[in-house]
Amino acid sequence: MLNKILVVGAGRSATSLIDYLLEQAPKYQWEVIIADANLALAEKKLEGRAHGRAVALDVLDIESRGELVQEVDVVVSMLPPFMHHHLAGDCLKYGKHLANASYVAAELKEMAESAKEKGLIFLCELGLDPGIDHMSAMQGIHQIQEAGHKMLSFKSAAGGLVAPESDDNPWHYKFSWSPRNVVLAGQGIAKYMYNGRYKHVPYQRLFEDIELVEVPGMGQYEAYPNRISLKYESAYGLEGTPTILRQTLRHPGYCKAWNLLLQLGLTDDSHELEYSENLTYASLIRSFLPAANDEQQFDSLRARLAHFFQLEEADEALDKLEWLGLFEETPIPFDKASPAVILQDILEKKWKLQPEEKDMIIMQHEFIYQDAQGQEHRRLSTMVQTGDNAEDTAMARLVGLPLAMGVKQIMLGQIERRGVLIPIHEEIYTPILQELENYGVVFEEREECLTE
Amino acid sequence: MLNKILVVGAGRSATSLIDYLLEQAPKYQWEVIIADANLALAEKKLEGRAHGRAVALDVLDIESRGELVQEVDVVVSMLPPFMHHHLAGDCLKYGKHLANASYVAAELKEMAESAKEKGLIFLCELGLDPGIDHMSAMQGIHQIQEAGHKMLSFKSAAGGLVAPESDDNPWHYKFSWSPRNVVLAGQGIAKYMYNGRYKHVPYQRLFEDIELVEVPGMGQYEAYPNRISLKYESAYGLEGTPTILRQTLRHPGYCKAWNLLLQLGLTDDSHELEYSENLTYASLIRSFLPAANDEQQFDSLRARLAHFFQLEEADEALDKLEWLGLFEETPIPFDKASPAVILQDILEKKWKLQPEEKDMIIMQHEFIYQDAQGQEHRRLSTMVQTGDNAEDTAMARLVGLPLAMGVKQIMLGQIERRGVLIPIHEEIYTPILQELENYGVVFEEREECLTE
Repeated sequence: MLNKILVVGAGRSATSLIDYLLEQAPKYQWEVIIADANLALAEKKLEGRAHGRAVALDVLDIESRGELVQEVDVVVSMLPPFMHHHLAGDCLKYGKHLANASYVAAELKEMAESAKEKGLIFLCELGLDPGIDHMSAMQGIHQIQEAGHKMLSFKSAAGGLVAPESDDNPWHYKFSWSPRNVVLAGQGIAKYMYNGRYKHVPYQRLFEDIELVEVPGMGQYEAYPNRISLKYESAYGLEGTPTILRQTLRHPGYCKAWNLLLQLGLTDDSHELEYSENLTYASLIRSFLPAANDEQQFDSLRARLAHFFQLEEADEALDKLEWLGLFEETPIPFDKASPAVILQDILEKKWKLQPEEKDMIIMQHEFIYQDAQGQEHRRLSTMVQTGDNAEDTAMARLVGLPLAMGVKQIMLGQIERRGVLIPIHEEIYTPILQELENYGVVFEEREECLTE
Repeated sequence: MLNKILVVGAGRSATSLIDYLLEQAPKYQWEVIIADANLALAEKKLEGRAHGRAVALDVLDIESRGELVQEVDVVVSMLPPFMHHHLAGDCLKYGKHLANASYVAAELKEMAESAKEKGLIFLCELGLDPGIDHMSAMQGIHQIQEAGHKMLSFKSAAGGLVAPESDDNPWHYKFSWSPRNVVLAGQGIAKYMYNGRYKHVPYQRLFEDIELVEVPGMGQYEAYPNRISLKYESAYGLEGTPTILRQTLRHPGYCKAWNLLLQLGLTDDSHELEYSENLTYASLIRSFLPAANDEQQFDSLRARLAHFFQLEEADEALDKLEWLGLFEETPIPFDKASPAVILQDILEKKWKLQPEEKDMIIMQHEFIYQDAQGQEHRRLSTMVQTGDNAEDTAMARLVGLPLAMGVKQIMLGQIERRGVLIPIHEEIYTPILQELENYGVVFEEREECLTE
């Protein structure tokens, strides 16, 4: 009987996980060890509850880490993705199960065979995205496939947004996760399948490759392609499906304005401006405009940009830039910064979720399939979740809860498979999706026939 | 008295260098050792001439390399840039001078102090570009500054092109140097000064940021910004000069067509298409067009592209793409290739300089300055050089000759400075520019007064 769990990392995204595990602990007689470099933080998350223990841990201290790992049955890594492999190595060494919410990194892939041979479960990608996306998509795909239907199109869109009641800026966006990841989002290439054809969208055209997605009860959102949708063809058993597209959701108008920042060069993190301290936001913007633009007369920088981008001066996209303060002669507060770092600093102030404000997660899958009679159907599977405040965000809850439930499955011996797993298997996703419903995390299903 | 030179690397760009050194050798009683991994190649370049010796050398064999370096006075590295530091390390160790034609890499910068302390010359950036560009620009700048004039603008443009008599394709371009560097040219950011303002041009707008440059006797060329012009402000002693811009020259129309390739995503080397073997050139192009474009009816892929780029179907830029065969259903000849690798493979066939064809180098500096009377003047300094054939290119000659002349200066003890040097000092550039004239490498000067 397994009875000890080690949670490494007690940051914001660990709160719901820790709460869940400590709630369940009395029932199953678990002990939950919460380890963090910051002992006070671990103690705060423990809140003095029974069945728990807070310890200080320097994750790079191999000996202390090894001692803790040896003591438990399952290790939950809430560390940044690039650090999981330290704990994974210990788990292999001492024969312990592992769980985390991140994409399977190369180092973990390499351990897959050894983990399997040793009868260990390394359960990964079990948060929100990746995590709930896998589970809810696979449930829909399996249902449709098991009914003998033919999948014609799979689109899956998700966004970490601001709840309407806390939405008071022209971008209709606030940060509920890594600002840096938002600023650099989409750099590289997006690849998807559309009507049986490969589609490749380079970064400089990503925010123009948008669709409007109707989210029932919420209205319309913009969706831009989310990285390499192609890899979900085999991961989800969608071989031969003509359309496979994952997308990121934003409020309508966001992509147009963000594209202006991108086209100017403000999202670029590949070079530093050695003299950024001598620039203002306005002079930085002007530095990205062609010399010919300087030589024309305009009443304002806004008019200058409108001309460059061939927009009306009243265009709302320019409102969004102006609201960020980009047209003002405010000195840039640091030197040798990349444009992306300068932009991130501005956005962290402007897009900050205030203590009582709420984030919102939307995730929606669209399955289009053909039945045996040749009729085409469209199924929409929609989840909308709102956070409580800037500390207890929907983002943190939806990352932590599924992972905690996966840990419970491991503890109770309910997972047969061994090795590196992601939650695309029915034995894993069904109980978790069911239990998530108890926590109000529900996908609403809508189905319509597309054939007249 | 120095009398032994080691040339490491006997490829195409070493021919003129070796010829020059062997021509001079009898006069000064030099011995020239030509070392290459391929002994036959070294022997071919030696052509059995006196004062020379060909040897086989594996550059990564520390012992053999060290023995050769110990034997000589000056080492000339014709290796790829990332390998110079191996020889530089030996030169430090054994107290030998070094010369090469590449930009000073970080490893060499770190050796600068030690080289200086040991009384060694590490003469770098002494080829064409970098090399002749530095020398001819500095000669102009020094003349203007010494006459007490005030520099208002410095623009320097260069291009490795095809000679008009060998120019038979719609791009008016053939390869005379690294095809890979041409395909990836400009990735990153371009930075320059224009009328006292910083200008930053991200890659996705680089080929739109063009000027037309009139080259006397040759007609008009297009010029796009060449990387970080800003660093020449201090390197060339141009502090406070309102306009500092280095540019790359191409035949008019090249940039517009190249920009179509860039915007599509074909110059991208950051990702592989795992399934490239299943694509054709035409389907690759279609994969980069938005899905909405697929859904419209067009007579041809050319018409499809014209619509996407908002061009007339007869636009010459589309002629250029069509001439490359990009609209044909030709299978892509390899798998898991990046778009840039696929494009490079096409271009290597289409832009190949045939054995009897000639390349052409154009380099032109424009200095605008104000004299003490407030009059503004424009000085143009223009070099045009044509190669003999695909083996004896202007490119190889203009890389090899200045370097060889720099080696002679070192051998004859004519350089006083020590440490890592680039040819921006009068004591170095004056004799080399004078001697280059004997080889027909001449900058023609034109001067006009801009004030009425």
